[in-house]
Amino acid sequence: MISKAQLKWVKSLQLKKYRQAEQCFVVQGMKGVLELMGSDFEVELVAGTEDMLSHVLAKSKRHVNNVIASSAALETMGSFQSNDAVLAVAKMKSVKPPVPNASEFFLVLDDIRDPGNLGTIIRTADWFGIKRIIASQHTADFYNPKVISATMGSFCRVEVSYTDLIFYLSDCEVPVYGAFLSGADIHEERFSQGGIIVIGNESNGISPAVEQFVRHRIFIPGFGLAESLNAAIATGIILDNIFRSK
Amino acid sequence: MISKAQLKWVKSLQLKKYRQAEQCFVVQGMKGVLELMGSDFEVELVAGTEDMLSHVLAKSKRHVNNVIASSAALETMGSFQSNDAVLAVAKMKSVKPPVPNASEFFLVLDDIRDPGNLGTIIRTADWFGIKRIIASQHTADFYNPKVISATMGSFCRVEVSYTDLIFYLSDCEVPVYGAFLSGADIHEERFSQGGIIVIGNESNGISPAVEQFVRHRIFIPGFGLAESLNAAIATGIILDNIFRSK
Repeated sequence: MISKAQLKWVKSLQLKKYRQAEQCFVVQGMKGVLELMGSDFEVELVAGTEDMLSHVLAKSKRHVNNVIASSAALETMGSFQSNDAVLAVAKMKSVKPPVPNASEFFLVLDDIRDPGNLGTIIRTADWFGIKRIIASQHTADFYNPKVISATMGSFCRVEVSYTDLIFYLSDCEVPVYGAFLSGADIHEERFSQGGIIVIGNESNGISPAVEQFVRHRIFIPGFGLAESLNAAIATGIILDNIFRSK
Repeated sequence: MISKAQLKWVKSLQLKKYRQAEQCFVVQGMKGVLELMGSDFEVELVAGTEDMLSHVLAKSKRHVNNVIASSAALETMGSFQSNDAVLAVAKMKSVKPPVPNASEFFLVLDDIRDPGNLGTIIRTADWFGIKRIIASQHTADFYNPKVISATMGSFCRVEVSYTDLIFYLSDCEVPVYGAFLSGADIHEERFSQGGIIVIGNESNGISPAVEQFVRHRIFIPGFGLAESLNAAIATGIILDNIFRSK
């Protein structure tokens, strides 16, 4: 059975400062844990109810440190809403911003603050085969448990690096796209084979400092009275438009 | 200043049973409150810090019952994350499922459980000019404060009715669309001028009981390894594809 010290350790990883000190993060739920076991992340611990733990160990070829935990203990450690009573602790990876590439698309996130939005953007990127995201330093933390959960396992396949976007974009010679109310109809756009797609902050959109680098201003036509689309929804629609035209 | 009784009353509306007993709901934040004031919802009370309250009253022609409340009191009543320290209480409306219409699209939600997803779907529907949503009885409550917040004011323009979907769809003679992994490429689909778009549950997709009514099975092409898209993202992409082809 899980010890008090282990329980306290896992619980502490809900907070960014402890995640950074330990260089570890928590993955909750069966889907995420199974994806983690199949990835190249180092796994430190898997904890679950007896049934769930056996299921994970049976499905994976890895030998990992594992421990049985009661549903109540698992709830204390995470924020479970389902009966998917299993979690894992894994080592963070250090990820550097990739060099812009004219034959591959990267997403650039200009202060996506909501963990659910970030996780959904990562999952959506993975659906369309985008493997790299470059985030501003004020974007939500990739290793936040709410982000990891919302990715539905895609955290294993999409790399997110954090950097100064001004510095990153000022060196960038590939096409840079971004959505603005004053942009050109996305349905008429002939997208390049690669480049950067900038996604703006939930409340303020793309910041003026970043906007100066956006040479291709696009717009998703709407017909109602909503002022804007949610940032993750806009990402999905932009990616569907880019990849349909290929 | 706000009384203890008012404070307790507003706070109670976080729970569905009290919302139903009182037939009232809470709108949080400046954007939502201003949209509410411009709508035909009956407003019972507006509470805010002095500045925020003056701003709301100055922007609106309505005379409404209003009261000053401290930031701390507002936090107790709602779940504020911003400095947008104002909220309003309004009367619910009774909404009946609309008759399917061959020249207008309605969304049908088959058990969307997450309030954030429901709110984002309503906001996205509003962006594309969709005015009516029919939800299964297990879909999240439209009047949940998290739903209202995530709509970013679109709750004023999109009507959501709750009903037995089997009963609703078995009577329906317009085209019914739904996304399935086995569906036809959405980019090749020639959509009709109106009908029903079914959006499935976050974990299970469209249920077998509802699936029998979906005569047009569509699919959003992906190129990565994610198993599925978030329900709200799929909604956005489907609507962009429907409205671009008009």
